[in-house]
Amino acid sequence: MSGLLDALTGDAEIAGCFSDASTLKALLDVEIALAAAEAEVGLISQEASSRVAQVCRDFTPDEAALREGMARDGVAIPDLVRQLREAIGEPHAKAVHLGATSQDIIDTALALQLKAVFGIVDDRLAAVIARLDLWSNEQGDAPLMAHTRMQRALPFTVRDKIATWAEPLRRHRERLAATQRSALTIQLGGPVGTGDSYQGKAAQIMQSMALKLGLAAAAPWHAERDRIADVGHVFALISGSLGKIGQDVALMAQNEVAEIVLAGGGSSSVMSHKNNPVAAEVLVALARFNAGLNGTLGQAMVHESERSGGAWTLEWMVLPQMAITTGASLRNAAKLIEGARFVPLT
Amino acid sequence: MSGLLDALTGDAEIAGCFSDASTLKALLDVEIALAAAEAEVGLISQEASSRVAQVCRDFTPDEAALREGMARDGVAIPDLVRQLREAIGEPHAKAVHLGATSQDIIDTALALQLKAVFGIVDDRLAAVIARLDLWSNEQGDAPLMAHTRMQRALPFTVRDKIATWAEPLRRHRERLAATQRSALTIQLGGPVGTGDSYQGKAAQIMQSMALKLGLAAAAPWHAERDRIADVGHVFALISGSLGKIGQDVALMAQNEVAEIVLAGGGSSSVMSHKNNPVAAEVLVALARFNAGLNGTLGQAMVHESERSGGAWTLEWMVLPQMAITTGASLRNAAKLIEGARFVPLT
Amino acid sequence: MSGLLDALTGDAEIAGCFSDASTLKALLDVEIALAAAEAEVGLISQEASSRVAQVCRDFTPDEAALREGMARDGVAIPDLVRQLREAIGEPHAKAVHLGATSQDIIDTALALQLKAVFGIVDDRLAAVIARLDLWSNEQGDAPLMAHTRMQRALPFTVRDKIATWAEPLRRHRERLAATQRSALTIQLGGPVGTGDSYQGKAAQIMQSMALKLGLAAAAPWHAERDRIADVGHVFALISGSLGKIGQDVALMAQNEVAEIVLAGGGSSSVMSHKNNPVAAEVLVALARFNAGLNGTLGQAMVHESERSGGAWTLEWMVLPQMAITTGASLRNAAKLIEGARFVPLT
Amino acid sequence: MSGLLDALTGDAEIAGCFSDASTLKALLDVEIALAAAEAEVGLISQEASSRVAQVCRDFTPDEAALREGMARDGVAIPDLVRQLREAIGEPHAKAVHLGATSQDIIDTALALQLKAVFGIVDDRLAAVIARLDLWSNEQGDAPLMAHTRMQRALPFTVRDKIATWAEPLRRHRERLAATQRSALTIQLGGPVGTGDSYQGKAAQIMQSMALKLGLAAAAPWHAERDRIADVGHVFALISGSLGKIGQDVALMAQNEVAEIVLAGGGSSSVMSHKNNPVAAEVLVALARFNAGLNGTLGQAMVHESERSGGAWTLEWMVLPQMAITTGASLRNAAKLIEGARFVPLT
Repeated sequence: MSGLLDALTGDAEIAGCFSDASTLKALLDVEIALAAAEAEVGLISQEASSRVAQVCRDFTPDEAALREGMARDGVAIPDLVRQLREAIGEPHAKAVHLGATSQDIIDTALALQLKAVFGIVDDRLAAVIARLDLWSNEQGDAPLMAHTRMQRALPFTVRDKIATWAEPLRRHRERLAATQRSALTIQLGGPVGTGDSYQGKAAQIMQSMALKLGLAAAAPWHAERDRIADVGHVFALISGSLGKIGQDVALMAQNEVAEIVLAGGGSSSVMSHKNNPVAAEVLVALARFNAGLNGTLGQAMVHESERSGGAWTLEWMVLPQMAITTGASLRNAAKLIEGARFVPLT
Repeated sequence: MSGLLDALTGDAEIAGCFSDASTLKALLDVEIALAAAEAEVGLISQEASSRVAQVCRDFTPDEAALREGMARDGVAIPDLVRQLREAIGEPHAKAVHLGATSQDIIDTALALQLKAVFGIVDDRLAAVIARLDLWSNEQGDAPLMAHTRMQRALPFTVRDKIATWAEPLRRHRERLAATQRSALTIQLGGPVGTGDSYQGKAAQIMQSMALKLGLAAAAPWHAERDRIADVGHVFALISGSLGKIGQDVALMAQNEVAEIVLAGGGSSSVMSHKNNPVAAEVLVALARFNAGLNGTLGQAMVHESERSGGAWTLEWMVLPQMAITTGASLRNAAKLIEGARFVPLT
Repeated sequence: MSGLLDALTGDAEIAGCFSDASTLKALLDVEIALAAAEAEVGLISQEASSRVAQVCRDFTPDEAALREGMARDGVAIPDLVRQLREAIGEPHAKAVHLGATSQDIIDTALALQLKAVFGIVDDRLAAVIARLDLWSNEQGDAPLMAHTRMQRALPFTVRDKIATWAEPLRRHRERLAATQRSALTIQLGGPVGTGDSYQGKAAQIMQSMALKLGLAAAAPWHAERDRIADVGHVFALISGSLGKIGQDVALMAQNEVAEIVLAGGGSSSVMSHKNNPVAAEVLVALARFNAGLNGTLGQAMVHESERSGGAWTLEWMVLPQMAITTGASLRNAAKLIEGARFVPLT
Repeated sequence: MSGLLDALTGDAEIAGCFSDASTLKALLDVEIALAAAEAEVGLISQEASSRVAQVCRDFTPDEAALREGMARDGVAIPDLVRQLREAIGEPHAKAVHLGATSQDIIDTALALQLKAVFGIVDDRLAAVIARLDLWSNEQGDAPLMAHTRMQRALPFTVRDKIATWAEPLRRHRERLAATQRSALTIQLGGPVGTGDSYQGKAAQIMQSMALKLGLAAAAPWHAERDRIADVGHVFALISGSLGKIGQDVALMAQNEVAEIVLAGGGSSSVMSHKNNPVAAEVLVALARFNAGLNGTLGQAMVHESERSGGAWTLEWMVLPQMAITTGASLRNAAKLIEGARFVPLT
């Protein structure tokens, strides 16, 4: 919302996956894939499909009209389709969005956007893990004091400490991969989720779109939001585990504890002797923020009837923020451990 | 985050209160008031105070440096003060931010921003209440069916129905006024919240700043975040009560119930017979979103020691969004009831 | 749920305010007050009112039937009234619950229960504040190191530290008093909240009940749940501020920091050298738990139509737990500061 | 907390899995398995292991002392082990809990308790699915009106409607099975999570315990709480999907809609014509409650250092309630669909 705050708690790359431009591109990619698949099964002609693709590929929408449509209809698709049909012109205007409902396009487009996010998140997780492994190789044998219940317990090693941080991250990579397979799917149900509007070809069209878009196949799931909740859960887990690292570092970086030395901590406006563990603190804030959003996302599972405007809108308000928060956690974690060194127990 | 989604769930006017430009202006207004108050009590000269005001009034910061400072220090103030001192030049460079800590400026600036938000919210509440009252005057005697536990209960009147909607909003106006008096206060504690850095004049400076900025006076409250939680609570109450209106309208607008007729509902991309109660649904989504954020804001009360980077950052992520969500609720509520008519029971 | 866990995070006294026995007594007290008020305005005879009071005062319900009724009806009142009418017998059977709906009785009974809770909470707050004040008197001048952003900042005093803890608690006492006046009210609306079932005497009956029961007067508020949210907010604030004390103590009690010495910390099953700050940690857990519940309570503001079974049930699941959590926070806080001493900075 | 409320929103069978008695039995079973495994690897004698098992199998603890220990130590284990050692007597007193830390026993015992819960939940899920399938077989071809955004959309069939309800439940059974394999594991790390206290035999002991207790093997995960979050997520998903069914049924059961007829709805204390969809409403309340708890459970991922008293205690407050809420959801769902019939569209 604010460029200043975003410098601390935002993530430009992942926010970019949810920009209007990215969203529009995803929506148009889905319309292209739909038309292509419909041409394959004979619902529209190849020529019509080509015309749809041609227009969608370079489409510059009337943005003001889109926003008005969004505010009026609660979804951008009706106005977008209107604009597209105008641009496509006769005789192929009807070939775009044929048989589809707004939710088919929007949920599938979201899956595309999330796939991009998953890629970024996985890359960053891998990088953080690699750095932790390197750190463990470098300082692994060094002794540290373990703390339980906020008290000194017994010595262990840097290797033990880092393992506690890295192991959950390794599991999160597996969870990301599994969630991509199960939750990043095509949505294709037509107006009331039965696929009937696709004239008996819904399953084939869906399979074809899955291949074209690199998404998993799935029966229509308009009002079944468990997959969305799974995505949010993985995001919350990642920022949660990174929040634990942040909390640990902030505790170890206390002057009185001095078990870790950080590079580039924050300065104070008046206390020049201070070296604040800013990135560590931010990781805690991001973890708590994402945990809260995850609880709110769960409210959206109570998705009434065949399509809930309320529950669906709630997802839109929450899930992209969870992705961005997760990205910001990874960004801050990378920054935090860069140049950090443990101070061995003597 | 997204212009498209903002058209539905955002609020440009209230978001504007938290833009970088607004934040910067608020921060500079606080620095000006601080310098003026410090001149009054003799900590700096009038000339110095005038120079501070002169520079702060038209200050154009190096934004990239501010963002870097934010990312590094976790707060924008250290770099902003550095830039200001450079701009002020000798001999008055030290006169700005004298005795202050980042939190003094940021928390006070937030109070200023919230005061602007409270004004907007109160105006909109008054407008919604006025329209409800008008509606009640117009259709008040008309009979409606009351529903309890999702079942038809007994008849009552439009007046009864509207009273259920309007009464909480009237109470929220009182809560806003009370919260403004108790929670929108000066923060002036210096580095560790004791006011010692103000050389024995902290109380006088604080009182003077309160007068100048139109905020309430308060002893330093760096690590006491109950006032912030009060603000969030009022926001969540407002969107909660409006969410109840939205839920009611969505239920009454069901085709089978048909107790209310809405103007300008949303259209469907494929079902042209539909008139979706979009604004009503959005009110429900906004209420649930704000309720969740309020729970997260509560996590920030566990504010460790004399200043918590983690808990404080969490507030920044949550509270402006709560304000915007509240504004969006009022915006959608106004739109929803505009032109809505009850269909009397026959 | 568990006696073992309750020893740590429960509160027997406040849980007692929500026991079946206490709930039943509150429900019966409301029925007695209702009948008495109805006799005053002539809706029933004095004799009938006396008979209602006589039966209600010593009523031993068929508990199994009550539970069955609860499971079937979603509220205990229909079966309780059936039992009461049977016990009262003719000619006064109909005099009990005359004109009332379940919600009138249940919401008013909850207000009675909350009034008892508020009394306990306020007493405990006062005791904690008194002990903090005593402590401040004893050690107030002693120097301590203030910490900001998890780093040593500058010295301040025990008096400063304790003020940060006590000031919010003083404000909470004011909030409790204000909330008691505004939120602990009579509920009297009849089946659909209009009071019509009280034959034109609803306002008088309500006023009379308010006097008899020591609750505030209020127009019917069946579907207006802002007062309930206010109660939850005060609870969350109290445990939040106590959680901050707990977090501070846990940090100060770290071996490496050693700014505070606690009496009677927890022992470890294997590390006999440890003295765990158990009560301090529990305060943090209780604060986070209550903050989360508060967010959930906010979901219940979306209370559809004239009475929502779903939203109302959600309140029942959340609010008593919030009260108990608040009580447990105060209990643990009292235990924590009992015998704690700061170790002055040298 | 309340027998009355529990009749509506509780679950005696699953609550029983977390009773003091069940918890104690689980803790003792873990101590037995630990001693047996330690005997296998030669850390203690077979005779010692037998003596441990003999005492643990029929152990009647001093409950008051356990509770006192819990309140003092924050965990019950130190006092339990003290009591056990006294009961075992010399020469084998030290053979119990050898090398273990409280968390090893408590986390493993929790896994045992959760395994029992998972079994119950899975059985109930299967039963609900079976009944839905039966219903679909009976009425599947009957036409219903689908509703999107709270408006009549287009007709579909009972089969379509039920599929929307049943498909997520089928996925939840898979999730339960997967989560059991990944998250219901042995915890065996010793005081600081390194396993060193098991004298080089930690991995063997852990594997042996896994076999004996029917839990999955895992490296120590004291401060890695992602598995706990996974368990909470599955619970929240189940109650979320059932909440969606409840919401749908409550909407369909509206008098004006009348698409479903329920058996045994709730009665009103004053409106005898009403048949309230109580179980449906309760499903919504339970879903929202569990979603909120899930958000709070996420806060516990910020588990500081090698063992956090605060974060761990928070899990204890939340996770059993989530299990019970899930059970209550399944119980109410079974009750709701029992005897429910759709009213075909005409």
